[in-house]
Parts: sequence; structure tokens; C-alpha cells
Amino acid sequence: MNTPVTADQQAEIDVLRDTPQSTLRAVAPGMEQHLYTAHPVLDHGFVRVVDYMGDDAAICQAARVSYGRGTKSVQNDEGLIRYLMRHWHSTPFEMCEAKFHVKLPVFVARQWIRHRTANVNEYSARYSILDREFYIPAPEQLAAQSDINNQGRGEVLQGEEAARVLDLLREDAMRSYDHYEAMLSQDGQQGLARELARMNLPANIYTQWYWKVDLHNLLHFLRLRADPHAQYEIRAYADAMCQIVADWVPAAYGAFKDYRMDAVSLSAQAVAVLQRRLAGETVTQESSGMKAREWREFEEVWG
Amino acid sequence: MNTPVTADQQAEIDVLRDTPQSTLRAVAPGMEQHLYTAHPVLDHGFVRVVDYMGDDAAICQAARVSYGRGTKSVQNDEGLIRYLMRHWHSTPFEMCEAKFHVKLPVFVARQWIRHRTANVNEYSARYSILDREFYIPAPEQLAAQSDINNQGRGEVLQGEEAARVLDLLREDAMRSYDHYEAMLSQDGQQGLARELARMNLPANIYTQWYWKVDLHNLLHFLRLRADPHAQYEIRAYADAMCQIVADWVPAAYGAFKDYRMDAVSLSAQAVAVLQRRLAGETVTQESSGMKAREWREFEEVWG
Amino acid sequence: MNTPVTADQQAEIDVLRDTPQSTLRAVAPGMEQHLYTAHPVLDHGFVRVVDYMGDDAAICQAARVSYGRGTKSVQNDEGLIRYLMRHWHSTPFEMCEAKFHVKLPVFVARQWIRHRTANVNEYSARYSILDREFYIPAPEQLAAQSDINNQGRGEVLQGEEAARVLDLLREDAMRSYDHYEAMLSQDGQQGLARELARMNLPANIYTQWYWKVDLHNLLHFLRLRADPHAQYEIRAYADAMCQIVADWVPAAYGAFKDYRMDAVSLSAQAVAVLQRRLAGETVTQESSGMKAREWREFEEVWG
Amino acid sequence: MNTPVTADQQAEIDVLRDTPQSTLRAVAPGMEQHLYTAHPVLDHGFVRVVDYMGDDAAICQAARVSYGRGTKSVQNDEGLIRYLMRHWHSTPFEMCEAKFHVKLPVFVARQWIRHRTANVNEYSARYSILDREFYIPAPEQLAAQSDINNQGRGEVLQGEEAARVLDLLREDAMRSYDHYEAMLSQDGQQGLARELARMNLPANIYTQWYWKVDLHNLLHFLRLRADPHAQYEIRAYADAMCQIVADWVPAAYGAFKDYRMDAVSLSAQAVAVLQRRLAGETVTQESSGMKAREWREFEEVWG
Repeated sequence: MNTPVTADQQAEIDVLRDTPQSTLRAVAPGMEQHLYTAHPVLDHGFVRVVDYMGDDAAICQAARVSYGRGTKSVQNDEGLIRYLMRHWHSTPFEMCEAKFHVKLPVFVARQWIRHRTANVNEYSARYSILDREFYIPAPEQLAAQSDINNQGRGEVLQGEEAARVLDLLREDAMRSYDHYEAMLSQDGQQGLARELARMNLPANIYTQWYWKVDLHNLLHFLRLRADPHAQYEIRAYADAMCQIVADWVPAAYGAFKDYRMDAVSLSAQAVAVLQRRLAGETVTQESSGMKAREWREFEEVWG
Repeated sequence: MNTPVTADQQAEIDVLRDTPQSTLRAVAPGMEQHLYTAHPVLDHGFVRVVDYMGDDAAICQAARVSYGRGTKSVQNDEGLIRYLMRHWHSTPFEMCEAKFHVKLPVFVARQWIRHRTANVNEYSARYSILDREFYIPAPEQLAAQSDINNQGRGEVLQGEEAARVLDLLREDAMRSYDHYEAMLSQDGQQGLARELARMNLPANIYTQWYWKVDLHNLLHFLRLRADPHAQYEIRAYADAMCQIVADWVPAAYGAFKDYRMDAVSLSAQAVAVLQRRLAGETVTQESSGMKAREWREFEEVWG
Repeated sequence: MNTPVTADQQAEIDVLRDTPQSTLRAVAPGMEQHLYTAHPVLDHGFVRVVDYMGDDAAICQAARVSYGRGTKSVQNDEGLIRYLMRHWHSTPFEMCEAKFHVKLPVFVARQWIRHRTANVNEYSARYSILDREFYIPAPEQLAAQSDINNQGRGEVLQGEEAARVLDLLREDAMRSYDHYEAMLSQDGQQGLARELARMNLPANIYTQWYWKVDLHNLLHFLRLRADPHAQYEIRAYADAMCQIVADWVPAAYGAFKDYRMDAVSLSAQAVAVLQRRLAGETVTQESSGMKAREWREFEEVWG
Repeated sequence: MNTPVTADQQAEIDVLRDTPQSTLRAVAPGMEQHLYTAHPVLDHGFVRVVDYMGDDAAICQAARVSYGRGTKSVQNDEGLIRYLMRHWHSTPFEMCEAKFHVKLPVFVARQWIRHRTANVNEYSARYSILDREFYIPAPEQLAAQSDINNQGRGEVLQGEEAARVLDLLREDAMRSYDHYEAMLSQDGQQGLARELARMNLPANIYTQWYWKVDLHNLLHFLRLRADPHAQYEIRAYADAMCQIVADWVPAAYGAFKDYRMDAVSLSAQAVAVLQRRLAGETVTQESSGMKAREWREFEEVWG
């Protein structure tokens, strides 16, 4: 079971959640309910909202560069947000900001950090000692290498092979950590510098960070990382964050779903093929102007 | 007199300021007092805080990547913040964010926008019609070209020359705006497109924007633009924002003053000269290893 | 006629173009032919390539993180580039860089600079005196305000109205510049500081800058600014740059055309409508799940 | 001995270095000599320049936004570059760009990637299989944890403790890699997905990437990472890159040394103390207005 938060930490969160304060700022009720609460992800990870700024109305306010909230109805706000999303206007969405505290395996952190337009403060293993916590995949996530996709997964491993993999991952993690502690120890010896000892730790050890990002860049992150082609482990975090964003800015999230997540981008060739099909023509790969691989991807959506 | 805000706008601001809401987020009392209030700048401009995120404690929290606010005293927080500023740790300061609504002349906006690490939504003169509001310098700001600094000001213009300049600026502004309206007019004619008509307007017309920035980049902006070498007109905005930041994050602002604004950077050569002077030696430009210009800048601080 | 380059400048360009040097770097023959040559844009503007880095092969090299250029055929390179573009892989395209020298009206510069992920050095009107050069639209570009699009153009102005507009633009530009010179003059007076005098100049005056950008962000810029919805004046620059990019990285530009410029993004609702149509159903706006405006945009492509 | 490059790779580099091409671009002779050559760093790493753009003259050209190279002497160029550096003008330095191919341990890559203003393409362990290469510190780098600096090193480990640490690092690396291979193997089993198997590998395994950055951000990186407080392992890369930059843009590098690397930043309090000392006063920590820690840092420079 995932119990990422200790009893002490939970007590501290409870205190924070019990002491509302007065503010003149815009408040997003759907986001307030998430504040500080750790949403479990994977076996020891979590995502929790530490702070936020703005709401759906702030997006419209920036788009209108108007004084105050104006007199527009929520209906109009939603229409404007959908228009902005459909036409790739990004700056109004940059006016909202969220700050997350995330606990995640290092190999997930390495993918995540490739998104550069965000602010990060990570736990420092130069300065401090990491905890003995490692990601070990659940059995249903223990997948074989895909035959057709170099960076994908195939079927789930079964039986002895699965057991052997789990044993290796667990044993290597524990042994590495034992040796990490042994090298650090100042008991009867000097003790290796922390900044060196950490190099012995495998990529499934957990780290944590504060990650702050504006809504435009957050949605871009979610588009790529909540996608079925993303590695499952980072997708688990993206999925949890999708739920949070849906509660925070429901209109923007709805537009994002329709115009990004569930949208389809058609190449010039694909547009032509669809237009010919709509006119009653039967189009084959040969007559489509597409290469085999692209045609296969096209057929997955359009049959 | 500067009355940048209309009666209607003031009424709307008053309503916003009268309706506090409950939040679980960190609240900065010094910033709440500024929220929505327009601080006048120049003859028709203003700066007002529209939203913010974080406070001094958030900087420390990120530096510690700790759960909640910890048990550290304010004294310790201030010491940590000074340490972070002194040693050029920038990421913890990125964890605070502020959003401003600014009304400013176009030529100031053009300097301002060179700071790229921020989010901006500007009033669109493609879409809407600009107001008849122009920056006309106060008499004490009507300076001659500096003889020694290509991008600086010399003495204040006097008498007839000053009067002539003010007349030209006022008349050209009014005439340009009259013609802007005449070209736009659909009274008895088609009316020129707004995106074209705007090209007739001079750079002292006022525009406005929402500008959102993290604290690290805001301080960098203030360091350059509240500097005596900055053009007076943008410095007026920077000075107003310095006051706001001082109330928002007093510890960070204090550290910023001591380690950035009022700090002095010594080149390798300057360090050597000071060390020789401290040892009792008299150092001249010739024996300093500095060029004439650099030596002059050095003497301005050290005599 | 557009003669943006003086005789002296042309002589200097000719010298540069006559003195090839030896390099071990990757060379893009299609880009070498553009180097330094000023491509005229609008009445006094230009775009010219001042430097560049990388070619189509550099994109593939980064994607493969391989040593040297590998043994892959050009055919394979093109296929890889199309795959990267189709699947929104942006980092390999960031490995190419171009530096442009651009002369452009200030109101175009103000739109352009909103693209923040680039490096800019602009001519400083604080430091130097601007030339007497203004953009005056060609008669066929003198458009009325659009009735249906708040930020668009309608029909071209005719007859007296067109003549009146051109006269106003020309006269106001000349008068503003006369007064700019009069205020700056140190003949019998002190002369206003340049940083102040510039505020009298209208937004159609020409400025110039060096603009350096990576290929990914350049293509993003071109996608938005070479689009029919972009204002004509910035589109003229984008169109000139499209030609340059097509010669520089032909495979990347081809993929960009097919998967970005000439591509169509379908919302979740639009996908469903097309699938129903392909199945033989007649879909109306009412049964489409789209609002009126979105349906209109949909019908523009799909009838 | 460090032999990061295989014979095949060396042959390929030799071919590239033997086939100069003709270009009209600015050429930096000092950088051409480095092109493609792998400079060994640590036990299996390297840095090599893959491409570059610009030179010292390009910095001045951008600062002057002038046509061509102008007629200024090299002497003047150097003076201008020193002026720009001294007064924190960053945009002209952004006009130069360099692209490096780096092979480095993962824990170094994790520090490096925190510098966000750069372009990166890293070897993908989702897609490909990593080589069996691990960083094992040289004996003289095997340091104990510092007693006074939480993120620093103390004395070098000796005798049995040193031997024990090296054994643990070596054995754990080899065992982890054996198990990585065992899990991946499709010999008599399905074989775990590469994107999962990689999580077993420790942080001292080598990865590689292309890293492209402009000169301003490169110098900022070098300032922080070639600093004595940086971890030795990343400093080794920064030191190698300093040599390369010194050959590429000698004037800019010289200014960087004097005004950044070897410069000292004085707080407002430190300026006051030095001025009192220069006036003959003896200042103690108590009368300095500094806290104990800051005073200690001050005395390290000024006695």
C-alpha cells in the first residue's frame, strides 16, 4: 500500500488545511480542496498542490486586458476560453500558475526535467541523505520490450521471468542502499562525501521536488505525458495532475481535452485523403501520397 | 494631476477590496494591502498588483524542499534568505510570482519587453482603439542630451527651448491622434483598418498590459531598471514596484538591497588595487592595470 | 522602389561574399547563397541572413545522438525528419540556429518581439538617431477595417479616402521627424536628450535588429506569422524567411509545410463529425456538438 | 587511461577534420582547431565541439547593430567587449552559439540539466541499451564528507576505507549492469522493456548528449560550475570547456575572467567596511554590521 506521507507530515497538513486565511485574491474553490493533500502515485510517490494563482476568469481577464472581472457571464467566459485554445493563443493561459510538491523516482524525474519552462527546487543528495525508498513496478506493469516500438512495452511478463525481475530490482536496490549507508557511515571511519556516495544509487530511488509552472506549459506537459505513448510511470503523475487541473480551471481543461488531448492533427496529405473519401473515392496507401508508416498511423484513426 | 483610474474603475476596485475570501494558501499581508490599488506613475500611468503567489516563507520552503512551513523562526528564515541571495541561488526566489497591471507609454513598454522571462498580455491596437493619452514629461524631466554619456541626460532644459519642446510634443500627439480618428472614422467613408491606423501614433501614447513574473526575474528587472543609469521613465515604474516588493517579501527585498542594489562588483584588477591600498600603497591608474574609463568608474566609488 | 541597402553597404556585402573561408563545420549550400544578401520587404525593409549553424543532417545527428554523420542515406534522413515533425519532437530542430539582420517598422517589431525564445539586439534610439524612413502602405494594402473580424482587414480603400489616408500618413511622418530633428538640434540651443526626443516618432518608423533563433522556434514563428490571419506587414517578413528556410533545410521545411502550415487540427467533436460523415451520415451544426462559430470554421475546410 | 573514443569513431573524426569546406560565415580559427576532437574528462567522459556560430567580432557587431564588420580595430573590439561585460550587457554575448557533444555520468548530467536555457538531446535509454561504462573516482578524488560544509568534501580517504569504497562502487556497478543485461535478455525469455530495465542502473553510469547554448548562458554555466565550490566531477567538464571558450572568443573570455570568475561582489555592508578601513579605521565583526558567517566569508578575501 502507498503511504507516502508520515503521521507527522499528515498532522502538519491537517493544521494547514484547518487554518483558512482571508485574501483579496481570486480563489478557485476546486483547487482549494486539493491544497496540501498528497495524491498517491506509484508505490511511494505523490503529487500535491502547494500553491496556485488564478482561475478560469483570470484567463479571460488577461485576454481582455480589462479592469476587474467585467460583467461577462460564465457562458461567455467559456466561449472565449474555447476560442483562445482553438486558435493557439497561449499567453492568456500563462497567467495562471501552480506549484506542486512531487515525490517521484529519479528516472521519471529525468524525463520530467526535459520540460524547461518551469521552476524547480529538488531535494539535494549533495547536501542530504536520500531515504531508502525505491520504485518497484506492480506486477501488471512489468512489461516486455515491444517488438514493434523501440521505446514501448509489449505483453506483461509472467511466471518465473516476472518473479526473477522483481527479485533483481528489489535486491539490487537494497544492496545499493546498504552500501550507500556503509560508505557514508562515520562509525569507525571518515565516511565518504554525500555528493560521491549518491552515485551508487539506482534510478528507481525516489527523490522529490517543488515544481512550479504556468497553465500553458502545464497543459503542454500533460498533453505529452498523459498521452498513451508516454512511459506509464510518468503518465501516472500526469493523470493525477489532469484531475487536479480539471477541478482548478474546468473551462480551460475542457477546451484542452477537446482541442488538444482528444484532437487529431491532419497533415496536408491526410486532409486531401479525407476530402477524397468524403467525395466517395476509395483511397489506398499507394494513391494517398503517404509512406507506409504514416498510412498505418492514419488508418488507426480513420480506418 | 494623475488620475489614471476612472470613477467606474475605482468603484470596481473598491468592490474587489471589500470582498475578502477564504483561502488555504500562504498569504502575504503586506501584499494584500496593495492588491488592485493603482499606484500612479508618470502623468497617466500606473502599476497595480492583480495577483501574487508566495511570500518570504515560500522561498525558504523551496530551499528546504521540506514539508509545510517547518519550525524555523523568522530569524532563521531571514538568515537563509540572505545566504541564498549572497551565493546567487536563484531557484528558491523563482517560487514566488506576482502579476501586475501596468499602464505605460509605448517607448517604455519597448524597453520593458526586452526582459523575456515573463508573461505578457498587452492591449491590442489591432483589435481595439487606443485612448487619447500621451506622456508629456514634467518640466523637471525635460533634459538635454548628456555630453559625456551617449545614452544619458544632461541639464534640464530652460525657458523658450523647454516651452518649444513641450509644445511640439503636445501638438504632434494631438494632431496624430486627430488623424488616427479621422482615418478610422466610418462616417461617410469605409474607415481604415485599426491594425493600419495605429502606425500613425507616436511612442509616447499609453498602452497597458498584464505582466506576470517570478520574484527572481522581477528582482533582476528591478536591479537594471531601478538603477540610476536606467531611463527616468522606466525607473519611475521600477521604483513604484520596489515599494510593493518591499512590502510583499521584506526579507528577500532587504537581501536584494544589500547584495544587489547597493552592492559593488569588483573586477580582478579592482580587488588587487584595493588590497594594495589597504596595505598602504598609493595606486594610480597607470599602476592599476585598468583603462582610463574603468579607472574613472572605480574612483567614483572608492575615491 | 525598395533600395534598403546603400552603395557603401552593398560594397561591404560584396567583399564579404567574395572572401570565402575554410571551415570544418557542416555547411548548408542553400544557406550560403543567401548569406549577407538583403531581401527587400515592404518599402524600406529587408531580411538578410548574417550567420547560421546546422543543416538537415544536424537534426538527424541530434536525434540519433550519434558520432559524426553516420552512414544513413539522405532518403532515411528525410524520413526521420518527417517522423520527428509528425510526432512533435522539438529538440532535434533546436540544434539548428539562424541569425538574421532585419529592418522593419516599429509596429511590426512590437508584434515580432512577443516571440520570447530568441536573442535580439535592436538599434538603440536612446543612443543613436533614427533615420528618416517610414513605412507607407502600397495602395493595394490600404485596407478598410473588416466588418466581421475585429482584428482583420476588409476591402481596399479607393479614391479620395485612399488618397487622404496616404497624405495623412506621409505628412504626419515627415512633420514628426522634422520636429524630432528640431528638438535634437544643438544649433543655438542645448538639444533634447535622444531618449526623450524619440517619443515623438510614430510606429511606422523603421528600426533594425539582429534576431537569432533556433529552427524549432523559427518554424513556430513562421507558422503563426506566415499564416493568412497574420497582419500583412509581418507576414511579408515571414514569407521572405520561409523562402530562406526552404533553401537552408529543405527536408525540415517540407515536413513543416505538410505537418504544420498546411495541416488541419481537428477537435474531438470535429473528428466525430468526420467519422459520421464518412459513414454516410449527414451532420448539421445542431447535431455536431459545435457552437455556431466553430461550425463555420469547420465548414470552411470541409464544406 | 581514458580512451573515450573508439578506433572507428576516431577514424570518422579524422575524416571530418580532413575535409574542410568553403563558407562565407565568420570563422573562429581558435575554435576550428577544437572541432570534433574529444577532450577527455574523468575516466570515460569527454567534451567535444560539434559546431559553433560567431566570434568576438560578432559580439561587437550585434552591440553596434551595424552592417558588416565595420572598420574598428581589434583593440577597440576588446575595449567594447570589456565594457559590455563590466556593465552586464548580456544580449550581444547571446549572439554566439556553441554545440557540444558530452559524455558524462548521470549524476553530473542531473546537475547540468538544471541550467534550462540551452538545447539538449540526450541518449535515450528508453530506446537504446546503455554501455557498460561507469565513473569510478580516481583515488585522489575519493574524499570524505566535509565537517563544515554540508555539500562539500573534506580530506581524501586513505587505506582500507578508500579501498573498500572503490570495491563497493565497482562491484555494485558491475552487478547492476549484469542484472540489467539479464533482465533485457531475450534468450529463453521475453525480456524486460528497456524503459523499465534502466531503472536498475546507478547514477555513475555514463550517458551522452548534444548540448547547445549561447555564449552568455555558457559563461553563466562556467561561472557556477568552474567555481571551486562546484562538485569536482562537473567542474572537470567546466574546466575543459573554459579552455575551449578561451580559444574561441579570447576577448570575451578575458573579460569574463576579470569581471566574473576572478571578480568579487561586495555587499552594501562590505563596501562600508572597506571604505572605513581605507580611511584607517579598524573594523571588527561587531562593528561591521555583518553576521558571523558573512564576516568569515569577507575575511577570506580581505583578511
